[in-house]
Amino acid sequence: MALIVQKFGGTSVANPDRINAVAERVAKYYKEGNQVVVVVSAMSGETNKLLSLAEEMMEDPDPRELDMVVSSGEQVTAGLTALALINMGLKAKSYAGHQIKILTDEAYGKARILNIDSNKIQDDLKAGFIVVVAGFQGVDSDGNITTLGRGGSDTTAVAVAAALKADECQIYTDVDGIYTTDPRVVPEARKLKSITFEEMLEMASLGSKVLQTRSVECAGKFKVRLRVLSSFEIKGDGTVITFEEDEKMENPIISGIAFNRDEAEVNVLGVPDTPGIAYQILGPIAEANIDVDMIIQNVGKDGATDFTFTVHKRDLTKTLKIINDEVKDKINAREVVGDEKIAKLSLVGVGMRSHAGVASKMFKTMADEKINISTISTSEIKISVILEEKYLDNAVRVLHKAFDLDKG
Amino acid sequence: MALIVQKFGGTSVANPDRINAVAERVAKYYKEGNQVVVVVSAMSGETNKLLSLAEEMMEDPDPRELDMVVSSGEQVTAGLTALALINMGLKAKSYAGHQIKILTDEAYGKARILNIDSNKIQDDLKAGFIVVVAGFQGVDSDGNITTLGRGGSDTTAVAVAAALKADECQIYTDVDGIYTTDPRVVPEARKLKSITFEEMLEMASLGSKVLQTRSVECAGKFKVRLRVLSSFEIKGDGTVITFEEDEKMENPIISGIAFNRDEAEVNVLGVPDTPGIAYQILGPIAEANIDVDMIIQNVGKDGATDFTFTVHKRDLTKTLKIINDEVKDKINAREVVGDEKIAKLSLVGVGMRSHAGVASKMFKTMADEKINISTISTSEIKISVILEEKYLDNAVRVLHKAFDLDKG
Repeated sequence: MALIVQKFGGTSVANPDRINAVAERVAKYYKEGNQVVVVVSAMSGETNKLLSLAEEMMEDPDPRELDMVVSSGEQVTAGLTALALINMGLKAKSYAGHQIKILTDEAYGKARILNIDSNKIQDDLKAGFIVVVAGFQGVDSDGNITTLGRGGSDTTAVAVAAALKADECQIYTDVDGIYTTDPRVVPEARKLKSITFEEMLEMASLGSKVLQTRSVECAGKFKVRLRVLSSFEIKGDGTVITFEEDEKMENPIISGIAFNRDEAEVNVLGVPDTPGIAYQILGPIAEANIDVDMIIQNVGKDGATDFTFTVHKRDLTKTLKIINDEVKDKINAREVVGDEKIAKLSLVGVGMRSHAGVASKMFKTMADEKINISTISTSEIKISVILEEKYLDNAVRVLHKAFDLDKG
Repeated sequence: MALIVQKFGGTSVANPDRINAVAERVAKYYKEGNQVVVVVSAMSGETNKLLSLAEEMMEDPDPRELDMVVSSGEQVTAGLTALALINMGLKAKSYAGHQIKILTDEAYGKARILNIDSNKIQDDLKAGFIVVVAGFQGVDSDGNITTLGRGGSDTTAVAVAAALKADECQIYTDVDGIYTTDPRVVPEARKLKSITFEEMLEMASLGSKVLQTRSVECAGKFKVRLRVLSSFEIKGDGTVITFEEDEKMENPIISGIAFNRDEAEVNVLGVPDTPGIAYQILGPIAEANIDVDMIIQNVGKDGATDFTFTVHKRDLTKTLKIINDEVKDKINAREVVGDEKIAKLSLVGVGMRSHAGVASKMFKTMADEKINISTISTSEIKISVILEEKYLDNAVRVLHKAFDLDKG
């Protein structure tokens, strides 16, 4: 007997028929003798509908009240899912965030889970219930309703799995697993049987939007075994996200290629190479709540350096205005340049650590195709490059082949 | 400075425009220096939509899960109303039932409020907030979400007013007050400036569907001053529902005429007049969850009696089947007759207590019009009769005139 947490997203519970399909899948695991906790999102479209209503009342809705409004969607799905299970003759019970004290901080709209009181769920499971939990929501210490941000139901599922010490947390999505890269770009892309947490983190944050990065971080922290599965196909084991130490076989050098077309590059050129420059450039950006992804600074020569970072394309205009108005003269920079016709591509793989030559093979492959690289940044298990957006698809394809990702 | 609780129903908050209109009305009271607590229903149609969804999952939905689903509607309106107020530059905060511990019993779908923790609301009011409370919902002692039954938001408003010792509880409806009778039947019907609780109870339960009976009972119990006002007209003071002792002027003999076309009559004829007969007849009806309104038994002669009661028209077939199948032979009744072409008419007025001759004047007025009365039942402040439905309108009109109700 295992304890399994299963999370179903908005498209999986979009209407009563789909909720019944979810209930059947849950029932299958339950009838095999497992204890099952189900975490559900709002029916697809519902959160957006609630968001629009709130925005009709107030242009930039008060965050506390916004959370009050949008959190209702998951409560409805939780109740409906429990009804579907009860209708099948099973014992089921649904809970909203406040009922099992999914305690979060006070950051409305992007709250972080601090604690979950798992006693009620434990008691229910022992009594033979299937427990259905409304995803995406919690309460702060004062009882105010909070939400975890888009995709927060993944985090709820992982946090519930951690609190219950579940054997596995299954995330049902509209893909059937994690692929070596996006199959729409590379038809030979192959589904991975397993991937390590570190790799998944790099893949997720780099634009393989299968799992919310925070949920993967949380799973890594609490050692929750994650599995990504398809909501719509009954067969298939999906992809397991494991800890390296669980993995018996040798890791392949490269697990996958992630890419992202949403970023724009900002170059602050000819900056005097003095301490505190990075903070002077990025401080005002952070204050404006603009997320920065890559940050690259080259060693300076002749006392000057070039500073490069990437932001989301939609933030480029605002970012350039801040740098030009508030930063450029103060730090005595020569020139500020923005470029939104770029893309980021990353090779990810824990095997990289112990294999030399990955970077040089990557650069040679791209050079052979005459693809120019503007910026390079590396970590222990990934190499990211920025290239012109128009070369991206071809770059992904040639690298996928060069690193034998189609061969498993 | 007064503390006012204002309740707005589903049609008053049906869409963002209407919610803004509600917010403006609330703001008016607030800006006059009052403390205001607002109780809102779900947007009209929303509860039915949620109910249908639940019924799609399960024919007769599990009551706990049903409450989980349908209670979400009020939470949304509460948040949206707070947003509308904040958007007007006011301080506002919304609460779901569990956040201000609207403690109820465990009777899902028809829970009764046991207690409200008013501390949070008091603190907020002191800090200058307008507090918006989701109507219709509460939590039981175990934290399960409960609902109070249709029209339960009225009860929430009264219970909140009682807990806060509010100066007045204003119920905004689609009528502008309580009338002497239905203006659609008697164009001369007059709006009452005030009505006593006892009269209102009789009027409400007899089919003047302005206020939920339970909310009036609750207001009477906790001495909450109620006022019924129109949501759609800014002017007008509506009707105050007072305690008799508050009333300085002499009460009119009759305050109003209530009537009800929804009932059907069941006559169990020639019943041996032995103890326990009433229970033997009504027990199986209650077990089938059929509500009985009037119950009349005449003194028997020759050891036999006739037993009459009324049920909702929709329950007549089921009721007759139960009586014929389970009761008739057991109690040795001669005959069972059902009649759905009837109506109930009631004269209501606390003045009746001290004025003789109300009944005889009533019966004479009806006799002059050749209107036959089949059944009569009286209480201290009302006289109810059952008559053929086709005579109802005329009966209401002649009685309204005979008792000078058009003259104020």
